[in-house]
Amino acid sequence: MTKTLSSFACDFAAFTAGRFFEMSEGGSAGMNLRTYDSLDRPPNEEASKRRCLIPIAAIAQIFGIAAVVMCTVWMGYYYGGFDWRNPALVFNYHPVFMVIGMIFCFGDAMLIYRVFHKCPKLPLKAVHGVLMILGLLFSVVGFKAAFDSHNMRGIPDVYSIHSWIGLVTVVLFAVQWVVGLIAFLVPYIPPRVRSKILPLHTATGLFLLCCALVAAISGITEKNFGSTYKDLPAPAMLSNFMGVCLVVFCGMVFYLVHRHDYRRLSELELITTYLRVPSSRVSCLKIPSFHLVLTFCRSIHMSYYRAIVFGYSFFLCTLQNPRC
Amino acid sequence: MTKTLSSFACDFAAFTAGRFFEMSEGGSAGMNLRTYDSLDRPPNEEASKRRCLIPIAAIAQIFGIAAVVMCTVWMGYYYGGFDWRNPALVFNYHPVFMVIGMIFCFGDAMLIYRVFHKCPKLPLKAVHGVLMILGLLFSVVGFKAAFDSHNMRGIPDVYSIHSWIGLVTVVLFAVQWVVGLIAFLVPYIPPRVRSKILPLHTATGLFLLCCALVAAISGITEKNFGSTYKDLPAPAMLSNFMGVCLVVFCGMVFYLVHRHDYRRLSELELITTYLRVPSSRVSCLKIPSFHLVLTFCRSIHMSYYRAIVFGYSFFLCTLQNPRC
Repeated sequence: MTKTLSSFACDFAAFTAGRFFEMSEGGSAGMNLRTYDSLDRPPNEEASKRRCLIPIAAIAQIFGIAAVVMCTVWMGYYYGGFDWRNPALVFNYHPVFMVIGMIFCFGDAMLIYRVFHKCPKLPLKAVHGVLMILGLLFSVVGFKAAFDSHNMRGIPDVYSIHSWIGLVTVVLFAVQWVVGLIAFLVPYIPPRVRSKILPLHTATGLFLLCCALVAAISGITEKNFGSTYKDLPAPAMLSNFMGVCLVVFCGMVFYLVHRHDYRRLSELELITTYLRVPSSRVSCLKIPSFHLVLTFCRSIHMSYYRAIVFGYSFFLCTLQNPRC
Repeated sequence: MTKTLSSFACDFAAFTAGRFFEMSEGGSAGMNLRTYDSLDRPPNEEASKRRCLIPIAAIAQIFGIAAVVMCTVWMGYYYGGFDWRNPALVFNYHPVFMVIGMIFCFGDAMLIYRVFHKCPKLPLKAVHGVLMILGLLFSVVGFKAAFDSHNMRGIPDVYSIHSWIGLVTVVLFAVQWVVGLIAFLVPYIPPRVRSKILPLHTATGLFLLCCALVAAISGITEKNFGSTYKDLPAPAMLSNFMGVCLVVFCGMVFYLVHRHDYRRLSELELITTYLRVPSSRVSCLKIPSFHLVLTFCRSIHMSYYRAIVFGYSFFLCTLQNPRC
C-alpha cells in the first residue's frame, strides 16, 4: 500500500512537471538544443533504450554458464577429471578456475552496475567488490594448479605468450581491485579524485576482460594443438564451442558496459529522464540545497528516495520563475 | 595574417562571452548543476583532459609499427621469406597481412576521430572509410594466403578456434564497413537513424578489434606451439614480444576510443567548451536558425568555420535577454 502510494506520487509528479515544462517552453518551437548535442544521445530515449539491457544480460548469462559447464566437461570427462595429487590431473583445475574467475565472475561484476541501475549505489559497490575478489581467488587457485602441474611434470613456467598475457592480466586485475577498493569505498576520498580515477578504472577493467579472453582462447589453442586437432575430435570440438561461448559472453558484457547511454544514471539524470525536465531547467536548482537534500535522501529506501527527489525538484521548479 | 586575425577574433569572442556569462550568473554562487551531473565529467576539464590524447596515440603508433616490423622479420627472416608460388612460403604472408590489416589499419581508423577531433567531420569520415577498406583488403589477401597454403599442402581449412574467430571477425568487419558506409556517408540518411546506429557501430568496432587481437595471439600460439617452444628460441621470443606489442597497441587504442570524454565534440560542445558558455545558456539559440548557419559554415575552411560559429553564438547570446 505504501509502495503504491509513493509510486503514484512519483507518476503524478512526473506527469505534472512534464506538462508544465512543455507548456512553459511553448511546445516544440522552444525545443532545447541540448537534446541534440550528441549523435549518440537522441532526446527522450533514455528509458526506451534500456529495454534491451535485461534480455542481453540474460542471454550473456546463458553463454557464460554454458562456457563454464563445457569447460568442466572438457576437463572432467575428456581429460580424466580432477585430482590435486595426481600429476596428470592437477592441470585440469586450471582452465575451469580461470574461466570461472577471470571471465564469468569478472564479467558479472561489471554487469551488475548496468542490470541493477535503479538500486542504491553502495550495496552495488559491495557486490561488485565481492564478485571481483571471488574472481581473483578463483584465478589465483587456477594459477597454482598450472604451476603445480608444471613443477610435478618438469615443464618450465611462463614461457608462452598465453602465460605472459594471463599473468599480467591477473596481476593488473589485483592492482585494479585494490585501487578500486581504496578509491571508491573509503569515504574520505574526495569526489574529484574519484572522478579522475573512474574513467581509467572502467576502461582498464573492460580491457582486462578482453585480455582474459585473449588468454582463454590462446590457452584452448595450446591445449588442443597437436596432430589430431585438424580432425576435430570431440574434446577439440567441445573446447572450440566453449571458446565461441566465451567470445559471445564477453561481447555482450562489452556491449552493455561500453555503451555510455546504458550507464547508471546520476541523480540529475534521474530527474531529467523520469520527469522529462530539460537539463537547462534543472540548472535552476542550485547545488548546495540540492545536495543537502540528496545526502538526506540517500539514507532512505529507494522508493521513498525517488519520491522525495522528484517532489523536491517539482516543488522548486514550479515555485521558481519559469523563465529561470 | 588572415589566420591570425580569425584566431584573434575567436579568442576575443571566447573571452568576452565567458566574462559576460560569469557576470550575469553572479559568479560561483550561480554555478550550473549540469557541470556536476556525472562523476566522470568534472567541470571545465574538457580541454585539459585531452592533453594525454596525443602522447598516448603517438606511443600506440610506435608499438603498432614495432609489431608490424617484428611480424615481417619473424616471417621474412626466421621462416624463410615470402613467395606466393612456393608451398612452404606462401603462408608467411598471412600473419603480416593480418597484423597490418586487422590490427594496425583498423586501430588507426578508429583513432583518427580522437586525434583530429578539431577537424571537420566529413574528411575524417572519408579517411576512416579508406583506412577501413585498406584493412579489409589486407585481411582478405592474408586469408587467401592461409587458404592457398592449406590447399598446396593438403591441410584442412577452418578447424581451429583461431580460424573460427578470425573468419567471423573479418566477415563482421566487412558488414560493419558496408553498414557504416551507407549509414554515415549517404546524405539522405536522417540523423535519427544515424543516432540509432552509432552506439552499436562504435561498440561493435571496438569489440572486433579485441577479437582481432584474440585471433592474432591464438595465431602466434599455433605457429609457435611445438617441442621447442618451452626453450624460447629466437623466433618464438620475437613473436611473443610482437604479441606484447599488439596487446599494448590495442590497449591504447581501446583506452582512447572507450573514454567517452575523449570523443569528438559536437558543435554545441565546441561552443560550450571554447567559449566557456554554460550549456543552459546555449539553449537560448533555437535549433532552426542555428542549424542553417552550421550548414553554411560546414562548407568553409575550419578556421573561418570556427570564427563564424563562435561569432554567431556570441552575437545571439549577447543580444538576447541574458536571463534567457
